[in-house]
Amino acid sequence: MIKAGVVGATGYTGVELLRLLAAHPQVEISAVTSRTEAGGRVDAFFPNLRGHLDLEFTTPDPERLASCDVVFYATPNGTAMQSVPELLAAGVRVIDLAADFRLKDASVWREWYGMDHACPQLLEDAVYGLPELNREAIRQARLVANPGCYPTAVALGFLPLVEKRLVELGGLIADAKSGVSGAGRKPSVGSLFAEADENFKAYAVAGHRHLPEIRQTLQTTIREDVGLTFVPHLTPMVRGIHATLYARLVEEADLQALYEARYALEPFVDVLPASTHPETRSVRGANVCRIAVHRPQGGDTVVILSVIDNLVKGAAGQAVQNMNLMFGLPEVAGLESAGLLP
Amino acid sequence: MIKAGVVGATGYTGVELLRLLAAHPQVEISAVTSRTEAGGRVDAFFPNLRGHLDLEFTTPDPERLASCDVVFYATPNGTAMQSVPELLAAGVRVIDLAADFRLKDASVWREWYGMDHACPQLLEDAVYGLPELNREAIRQARLVANPGCYPTAVALGFLPLVEKRLVELGGLIADAKSGVSGAGRKPSVGSLFAEADENFKAYAVAGHRHLPEIRQTLQTTIREDVGLTFVPHLTPMVRGIHATLYARLVEEADLQALYEARYALEPFVDVLPASTHPETRSVRGANVCRIAVHRPQGGDTVVILSVIDNLVKGAAGQAVQNMNLMFGLPEVAGLESAGLLP
Amino acid sequence: MIKAGVVGATGYTGVELLRLLAAHPQVEISAVTSRTEAGGRVDAFFPNLRGHLDLEFTTPDPERLASCDVVFYATPNGTAMQSVPELLAAGVRVIDLAADFRLKDASVWREWYGMDHACPQLLEDAVYGLPELNREAIRQARLVANPGCYPTAVALGFLPLVEKRLVELGGLIADAKSGVSGAGRKPSVGSLFAEADENFKAYAVAGHRHLPEIRQTLQTTIREDVGLTFVPHLTPMVRGIHATLYARLVEEADLQALYEARYALEPFVDVLPASTHPETRSVRGANVCRIAVHRPQGGDTVVILSVIDNLVKGAAGQAVQNMNLMFGLPEVAGLESAGLLP
Amino acid sequence: MIKAGVVGATGYTGVELLRLLAAHPQVEISAVTSRTEAGGRVDAFFPNLRGHLDLEFTTPDPERLASCDVVFYATPNGTAMQSVPELLAAGVRVIDLAADFRLKDASVWREWYGMDHACPQLLEDAVYGLPELNREAIRQARLVANPGCYPTAVALGFLPLVEKRLVELGGLIADAKSGVSGAGRKPSVGSLFAEADENFKAYAVAGHRHLPEIRQTLQTTIREDVGLTFVPHLTPMVRGIHATLYARLVEEADLQALYEARYALEPFVDVLPASTHPETRSVRGANVCRIAVHRPQGGDTVVILSVIDNLVKGAAGQAVQNMNLMFGLPEVAGLESAGLLP
Repeated sequence: MIKAGVVGATGYTGVELLRLLAAHPQVEISAVTSRTEAGGRVDAFFPNLRGHLDLEFTTPDPERLASCDVVFYATPNGTAMQSVPELLAAGVRVIDLAADFRLKDASVWREWYGMDHACPQLLEDAVYGLPELNREAIRQARLVANPGCYPTAVALGFLPLVEKRLVELGGLIADAKSGVSGAGRKPSVGSLFAEADENFKAYAVAGHRHLPEIRQTLQTTIREDVGLTFVPHLTPMVRGIHATLYARLVEEADLQALYEARYALEPFVDVLPASTHPETRSVRGANVCRIAVHRPQGGDTVVILSVIDNLVKGAAGQAVQNMNLMFGLPEVAGLESAGLLP
Repeated sequence: MIKAGVVGATGYTGVELLRLLAAHPQVEISAVTSRTEAGGRVDAFFPNLRGHLDLEFTTPDPERLASCDVVFYATPNGTAMQSVPELLAAGVRVIDLAADFRLKDASVWREWYGMDHACPQLLEDAVYGLPELNREAIRQARLVANPGCYPTAVALGFLPLVEKRLVELGGLIADAKSGVSGAGRKPSVGSLFAEADENFKAYAVAGHRHLPEIRQTLQTTIREDVGLTFVPHLTPMVRGIHATLYARLVEEADLQALYEARYALEPFVDVLPASTHPETRSVRGANVCRIAVHRPQGGDTVVILSVIDNLVKGAAGQAVQNMNLMFGLPEVAGLESAGLLP
Repeated sequence: MIKAGVVGATGYTGVELLRLLAAHPQVEISAVTSRTEAGGRVDAFFPNLRGHLDLEFTTPDPERLASCDVVFYATPNGTAMQSVPELLAAGVRVIDLAADFRLKDASVWREWYGMDHACPQLLEDAVYGLPELNREAIRQARLVANPGCYPTAVALGFLPLVEKRLVELGGLIADAKSGVSGAGRKPSVGSLFAEADENFKAYAVAGHRHLPEIRQTLQTTIREDVGLTFVPHLTPMVRGIHATLYARLVEEADLQALYEARYALEPFVDVLPASTHPETRSVRGANVCRIAVHRPQGGDTVVILSVIDNLVKGAAGQAVQNMNLMFGLPEVAGLESAGLLP
Repeated sequence: MIKAGVVGATGYTGVELLRLLAAHPQVEISAVTSRTEAGGRVDAFFPNLRGHLDLEFTTPDPERLASCDVVFYATPNGTAMQSVPELLAAGVRVIDLAADFRLKDASVWREWYGMDHACPQLLEDAVYGLPELNREAIRQARLVANPGCYPTAVALGFLPLVEKRLVELGGLIADAKSGVSGAGRKPSVGSLFAEADENFKAYAVAGHRHLPEIRQTLQTTIREDVGLTFVPHLTPMVRGIHATLYARLVEEADLQALYEARYALEPFVDVLPASTHPETRSVRGANVCRIAVHRPQGGDTVVILSVIDNLVKGAAGQAVQNMNLMFGLPEVAGLESAGLLP
């Protein structure tokens, strides 16, 4: 059994990670930390876990964490980088679900996250945990930067087109819609039910932190600049991201065949039949990205529809997938549930 | 492996049953029938099942069903009773998720369901599938009448009080609130999103079909009449039932201890700590009933809060629990997932 | 034109009050105060008011408020009582939408609100602003305590039965369900979209602050103790309260006729036809309480269904109704909109 | 008083139109027709109208309708065209809220709506009722084709850019999101609460009926072809459309100033300050389109955010605005309510 620790497990990615790990056949959860909730039972805090997890929150004790095989950080941005070097030195593998190790360039990180990076020397070695792109590197990684939710949906949607340079790389558009759980469990006016329900709005059109992350992923893949307009929106549901992607074809291709071939061996990317429309609810609670390819009226604008559960393939599920790879387990272990519909 | 057939699997209890059976370690789904969808892939109809169920809908062919070990009916009321006798004669065990075999008295059935019963001779032998009440009978049953969703939440909440006759049996009140999936997948104006969203209302106050079912369950248990006022409400969410139960104490008792003792060995009834409030989302997708016991201001009115997922412990999950009992499997097989929260 | 000031208008009752007052034919809004937002435009804070209210938030300057004819407090509990005496002394009439002046007994107030009352001498003179009960007193009042949302729905539902003593007064039950806007605009985990959506729960079963308020209203009316069990629930919608009320008849009566007669002249209480079920959405944005009377199966348990918009008849609309009475305006002025459905 | 008739008022645009007309100071509703509901009270069907509309549904009697000054059709597509010629001949003015008279080319209509047009000779004279584009023509019109909901939001958003030819006209993208009331009150599986809640999906990506309508509007304006990719989505809320529009600049311009100038005199188009994000709830129940202009990272991709209430500015409110123009009333009469927030 792999001994797993979870740091900062009082948010939504935290509870989802605990749900998945508690049911994972080869994992034993040995520490769940929270400064604020230390001493309280985890299943009193998250009652869905009653009967599934018999543990208390503890303070993030370095020694206890150092005895784990793997430690997940489900903390706010800027927290993991404070203690990850110590854990790595102790031989623990680390998967950070926050943004601390996603961007390769510390100055870009500072620009978008508003703080100096605490351990820029680790950025080079950290592996960006998108298995569909970096599977082999993840297997060897000591430190995995788990991708953001939008970047997962958008990158998986664009990759086949970009890898083959079939579209104008300077004019990509990603119109993305997220459920409100993406804003986290921290109290804020904008995330209140009475603010977000029966309401739809765009936000951060001037620039969202996931923009440089998506751009880095696409650019690294083809070693070339890409131009991306990324507009995130808030939609009144708890879970789910729907990315609607637009690009202009510069070369003819059988797009449906291209996508099917690109993801044929991927256990968690599901290319739908032509002319269909993926629903976010079809992936609720499931570690899968469903993608449909469209070319309206046969014109030169490609429309890709890509859906994930932001808390699963966009966070906790992908983290477990990365753990499976890092420890040589079957990639699908603990991740085989179907989505909950309706 | 148990060979299972599902008749009429195009509704919400149907898809939930397929989700649970597809993941059940000891079940093989061998037939999924639908007159209207015959020939189409099940996972095209319910895309959450893509990758989990490789079957097409077939017409409800008696021979094919007769080769199953167990057949579930997820059909509208009045359908199962047309073909169940034939299946039983062929040695197949049957679990009916509709109401056809829930009421013991065919004349009561006619009164509330508006049609003559097609096989009243089976009503006596049909076992009411509430394991917490009838576990041993279910183990021996050929035909199980799976309880309704409201009756499950209400009966489990009232049983400890009623069995001990601690309350005025003539004045029970059940104020129940259901998510809209309880109304089924049949198109109707009242179930439209634009009708049910941002709206709360009571319905069928004059008399709901689950009233005689609940009354029968409680009365059978104590062989005495009970008076019950049952008011169902529609609440704008997909899944979940919250029953708020009121009764007047006629005798002092440690109610918390009573409930904990009554359900101590039950794998799927979870008595919460005193003074807490169960949330429907804590049981979303899970086969569990969570109950909290209150006695406001120490008065003589007891308030019991009971929550279930109407599609799981209130339908498909309970059906699988019954199947497990009927076939000597571990009662929890295939039912061990935690609720999906948030 | 009546010059109106609104203190603390950054919450939901605040914005609703501004919406109503801005459209009121005989009111000029002359001051909108907020310590935190002073200097900012009101319609930048509440963009629905763009084009309807050309004002900035100001600090709560006593002199400016003293120049108003009426001042509304839409502040947290315990705020109004700090400055109301001063305003009254300056000849301004006051309507408090918070709880400061609702309870007649300062010690009960301290018990339920956890603080000493700052001006208990005003409690006697403050008029409880339920026009259907206290219309004449409101006309003369200098200080009106605007009722709570639950108390409005519950009291209007019970009054006809209680006034005539037709039911067991010791065993009233109010099972009430509220939309999440009732929790206010203050950030808190429990009011987050991802907590409250797709979820139903009871809360404060042990004792809610509206319990003594409802009890006081009913008891004052008949000068006799009543026993009330009050269980509030949170339902996933923004606006609306549905109170389901239970009482046992002790005397025969034509209940439908009783309710119709009691409210025949009331402009804002609408008794529905027998056997119907009021929907909260039918009163969305409207200053009306809709009530239906049921007696299931002709038994001795009466079931009253009462719905309001918690922000209108349960707060801002009722405050405007009270203002109309206090200033001799038509009671319905500014309150004639129909509900927004769907 | 203008005598108004409403044909087919049992849907969502119907009830919204009745709500607005009932409160209109210069309108008397003289006939509300419905074949299926004839003889029943309108306010029994739509209980929000209790106390606001004292009428019964009648069958669509030509004579009665001929006595109206104006008749609104809130019928399914293809209905109005059957009887409009007769009404026009009788001197009645007509506003059709369906699509029958929106497309100028009968063959395009047949292609997208699947039926022959019953009176193609009227298409030329019918005025497309977008006041911001066709105000003078509407004043003179006998027959107004009220625009579709998406076309209103998208056209108002694109018009300033297109009129000035500031963007690549061959590559416009409209990513639009609609609340579920846009699908109407007809029962269908896809519009059920349990299907649409907690779900987000695109639909009709291959081609939606509003595509030719939007294209016609833009092309007519500049007498030049435009290329438009239009992707509609369903979002889990009742009311509201949010259109996110993308275009590539071909010429520098002060876009904020352009939009402010274009709509400076428009009572129902509200250009927000730069860098803001309009919320659909800010226009709930209000006849206004709110628009914000963005140019992310100063690149050449313009992003326009445009929101309306699909039932008001996208249907019934715009119809009343058109009526006001046709009858020489103040354009804002009956349309001055602020949005309902929260």
